[in-house]
Amino acid sequence: MGTRLPSLPMIEWMRGYDRSTLSSDLVAAVIVTIMLIPQSLAYAALAGLPPQVGLYASIAPLLLYAVLGSSRVLAVGPVAVVSLMTATAIGELAQAGSPHYGTLAITLAFLSGAMLLLMGLLRLGFLANFLSHPVISGFITASALLIAAGQLKVILGIQAEGHNFFELVRQLASHIAHTHVLTAGIGLGTVAFLFWARRGVKPLLRRLGLGPRLSDGLAKAAPVAGIALTALLTWAGQWHEQGVRIVGVVPAGLPPLTLPSWDASLWQQLAVPALLISVVGFVESVSVGQTLAAKRRQRITPNRELVALGASNVGAALTGGFPVTGGFARSVVNFDAGAQTPAAGVFTALGILLAALLLTPALYYVPQATLSATIVVAVLSLVDLRMLRSTWAYSRSDFSAVVVTLLVTLAAGVEAGLVAGVALSLLLYLYKTSRPHIAEVGLVPGTEHFRNVLRHQVQVSPRLASLRVDESLYFANARVLEDRVNALVAERPELKHLVLQCSAINDIDASALESLEAIDQRLQDAGVQLHLSEVKGPVMDRLEGTDFLHHLSGQVYLSHFLAIAELAPEVLQERSTV
Amino acid sequence: MGTRLPSLPMIEWMRGYDRSTLSSDLVAAVIVTIMLIPQSLAYAALAGLPPQVGLYASIAPLLLYAVLGSSRVLAVGPVAVVSLMTATAIGELAQAGSPHYGTLAITLAFLSGAMLLLMGLLRLGFLANFLSHPVISGFITASALLIAAGQLKVILGIQAEGHNFFELVRQLASHIAHTHVLTAGIGLGTVAFLFWARRGVKPLLRRLGLGPRLSDGLAKAAPVAGIALTALLTWAGQWHEQGVRIVGVVPAGLPPLTLPSWDASLWQQLAVPALLISVVGFVESVSVGQTLAAKRRQRITPNRELVALGASNVGAALTGGFPVTGGFARSVVNFDAGAQTPAAGVFTALGILLAALLLTPALYYVPQATLSATIVVAVLSLVDLRMLRSTWAYSRSDFSAVVVTLLVTLAAGVEAGLVAGVALSLLLYLYKTSRPHIAEVGLVPGTEHFRNVLRHQVQVSPRLASLRVDESLYFANARVLEDRVNALVAERPELKHLVLQCSAINDIDASALESLEAIDQRLQDAGVQLHLSEVKGPVMDRLEGTDFLHHLSGQVYLSHFLAIAELAPEVLQERSTV
Repeated sequence: MGTRLPSLPMIEWMRGYDRSTLSSDLVAAVIVTIMLIPQSLAYAALAGLPPQVGLYASIAPLLLYAVLGSSRVLAVGPVAVVSLMTATAIGELAQAGSPHYGTLAITLAFLSGAMLLLMGLLRLGFLANFLSHPVISGFITASALLIAAGQLKVILGIQAEGHNFFELVRQLASHIAHTHVLTAGIGLGTVAFLFWARRGVKPLLRRLGLGPRLSDGLAKAAPVAGIALTALLTWAGQWHEQGVRIVGVVPAGLPPLTLPSWDASLWQQLAVPALLISVVGFVESVSVGQTLAAKRRQRITPNRELVALGASNVGAALTGGFPVTGGFARSVVNFDAGAQTPAAGVFTALGILLAALLLTPALYYVPQATLSATIVVAVLSLVDLRMLRSTWAYSRSDFSAVVVTLLVTLAAGVEAGLVAGVALSLLLYLYKTSRPHIAEVGLVPGTEHFRNVLRHQVQVSPRLASLRVDESLYFANARVLEDRVNALVAERPELKHLVLQCSAINDIDASALESLEAIDQRLQDAGVQLHLSEVKGPVMDRLEGTDFLHHLSGQVYLSHFLAIAELAPEVLQERSTV
Repeated sequence: MGTRLPSLPMIEWMRGYDRSTLSSDLVAAVIVTIMLIPQSLAYAALAGLPPQVGLYASIAPLLLYAVLGSSRVLAVGPVAVVSLMTATAIGELAQAGSPHYGTLAITLAFLSGAMLLLMGLLRLGFLANFLSHPVISGFITASALLIAAGQLKVILGIQAEGHNFFELVRQLASHIAHTHVLTAGIGLGTVAFLFWARRGVKPLLRRLGLGPRLSDGLAKAAPVAGIALTALLTWAGQWHEQGVRIVGVVPAGLPPLTLPSWDASLWQQLAVPALLISVVGFVESVSVGQTLAAKRRQRITPNRELVALGASNVGAALTGGFPVTGGFARSVVNFDAGAQTPAAGVFTALGILLAALLLTPALYYVPQATLSATIVVAVLSLVDLRMLRSTWAYSRSDFSAVVVTLLVTLAAGVEAGLVAGVALSLLLYLYKTSRPHIAEVGLVPGTEHFRNVLRHQVQVSPRLASLRVDESLYFANARVLEDRVNALVAERPELKHLVLQCSAINDIDASALESLEAIDQRLQDAGVQLHLSEVKGPVMDRLEGTDFLHHLSGQVYLSHFLAIAELAPEVLQERSTV
């Protein structure tokens, strides 16, 4: 064992493990387990998979993350958006419920896990940064709406198939007369109960004399209560004989050992969805992990998170699961319930394992509408339409990225929406940087500061022009500076000196260097000297390796004020302002 | 006529037109006409078109550019790279020499012209900026090598068909034993003569007692002399009966009136090549125009250039031509010969019109190998391999863009090469900006300046950290700052203040704003205040429209020094350096 081996985070937290940490972790594990059982069943249904698959996907991933992950409280398992993306990706290739469908889900988890591992080993975590906040916001809101609309047909007990959100809503509206009243009663009743439970249960329990911690824990068990109650009613009334769809037989047992398909053409078909699932899952997981870690002055390591999430997904694939990631709701519950170390995750995994072994007969009478109701309540909290207004106020280009992602996701699905959003964000960024702000600046009287001549009363000389470029110079904007300089020289016959203030130029690429050389050459032809001021260290290092500074007709000045003092001292004496 | 109509540039230069301007323009026109006749024939052959098409393409475009263009000396017509791109684009759709091939060339010129006009009217000239200098360098060099290799088979009189440069060279090598000796003698002799003529003719004529101006003009006519001489020899020896390929019958007459094909599926096939031809042609033309305009303190207007080049291409399409642009060689010759106004272009067009009417019988015996020799000599001056070394020295990422463009163009053709180069440049730029330089800075003793703590002896406080981000904050790099701040807070338990020096931050997008909010929130959770200093005006304007500044735990300071003076005054008193 050398110091050169990357140490596992678990070694660190196991060192200080004691009785009080154990008891905190055990309490958190019990609460999270109770919350996860219905959630796992529901997200498996959302992904088009049998309910026990949801339980399987919550065991091995939790264990692997506990060993490899850098967050102490992140809980890994099925989450809503990734389940929707799974259903979308494999729904086109196989019939939901068929054995092939299950193999596809396993293969997708395996590919996604392999990609995450690869990104982690190659330190490519930065790729996830290209999913901008507006794109994520638009995508999550659209996904939540898609999921809610899809679950509504189960809650109402009607048929509706739509290729996109708008078609789905139209079909729901046209079939609403066929609503199965008993199913709708269960589904809508559960929705109402769950919304009420969020706010109402805790104060009620406190009024009944329970302690704050117990009240909080019991409030989180509301979905379980809803499931138990509706299952009990369905059993008592034998409602499944009156057309209420129930979960039915759930095989009991340990998670099976499974292998992905090794079919190369299938891998090709699943590559893009797997990549998108990896990136979306990683972004969701890291943002949850960072937020929770910061609250205790801990930190997470994104590249290690990639490895941990990758291993979790490979683990899901080998134990009959489907794609997983670090979930927001379950991680926050784990944190709030007082989990101190990833051991809480290990205990949770054991709890779910027990459920998979012993609890499945009890799930027989659970109505599908109840599971759908828990999904709808969970995802509607993800719908955030206020961000449309705030993004509009802040920046039109960010707003357009939100709207395009939102609408394309609703109209053409999750994959098209993500790709369109990322592409648009990148194009808008390039467009912005390709039209940099270039200000002609002058001296603010009595100071050494320079400001835009159009906005401020400043001192200038007709013999000297000062330009400040507010952007790194690169190929897409180098010619803009050329145009600006050409225009300036053409309209100022008396010009002798041009000074570029480079304080905001963080980089000059080869195209921009050629542009600067062309500018210098043209200025020389026109009898004007080109000077630079306030060039940053790294930029200067680069320029010193080239001929540019030798050919430069003028000087490089440490500060813009020094340049003006030497080249146009009359500006400093000037009393009148321009 | 109102002031609101955009005035034509010609009104300006016609106002001051006098006898001396006329004589300068006429002399320049004669020289350029003599130079253009062989060039037009050669580039038509390169594009796979009959020789007279080259003459046609040099008449209407010159006239239209003279009326609409903003450069006074740019000469528009067929150029080498665009001719190659034309041959590539339409060579896949029809057999060179067939009537359909001619229609395709006309349609391509029409589409390219329409796109340029549209870009000009929508002021989309900035799109051309996305062709970086490294991509253009790699592309031009690769195109020149492709052209030279293609002409070599004509010069040697052998067969060689290759899908790419390497295949072409391999075929040339394997067929070299079949070289047609007489053809090769003409071709290689002309190449040698032209290379010698570049350097040797002018001094020779001066020694023979001719004036400098006349010597210069005659030197430019060397290609014409080469053509006349080889045609004469071929006629005298009746070499075409011994297998030397000649130009043959060239129909005399005015350019025909032609219309493009209106077939929508054809337009779809030609859309991408037309766009690439438009952008490459525009970039080449504008860079020539700007260089020449600057020498006389004139300037050109890129959006007007788009309109002028668009009209020129539409003009070429309506008069039996093919895609054209402003050429480097012809424009420089025009400039050097003393052209003062676009009237020189009008006179040149008349000269070529006369050639098309009267000179075509004289072209019968011109060997094709001679035309190929003029092309090879012209394009080899475009091959610039030194830029590989200088780009390598300046920047590895620019170098990789050159190499990828060069190799993909050689291996997979002009279109694939351009697209690969542009895509790679954009990705590299995004990658660079996604990993911004973030320096922790400290006070340089005795000054108000702050420098990187890793590079300089500076004063710092354990209670306060100063970070300077050398990049605008946007979605692709916002999380990098989050990671950096998280790491800093985790390793400095005594930290109370974090100050971000924002002097190089030119923009903060919505994602970065959310990141800053998350950073502030996490710092508050950890008991650390977040402050900003030296925020730029436009960025501050944006932030003031949001809640961020209200929630911010700390202050915004005008200068970083003011922030330190208030938050950690002990740094200013400190004598010891860290």
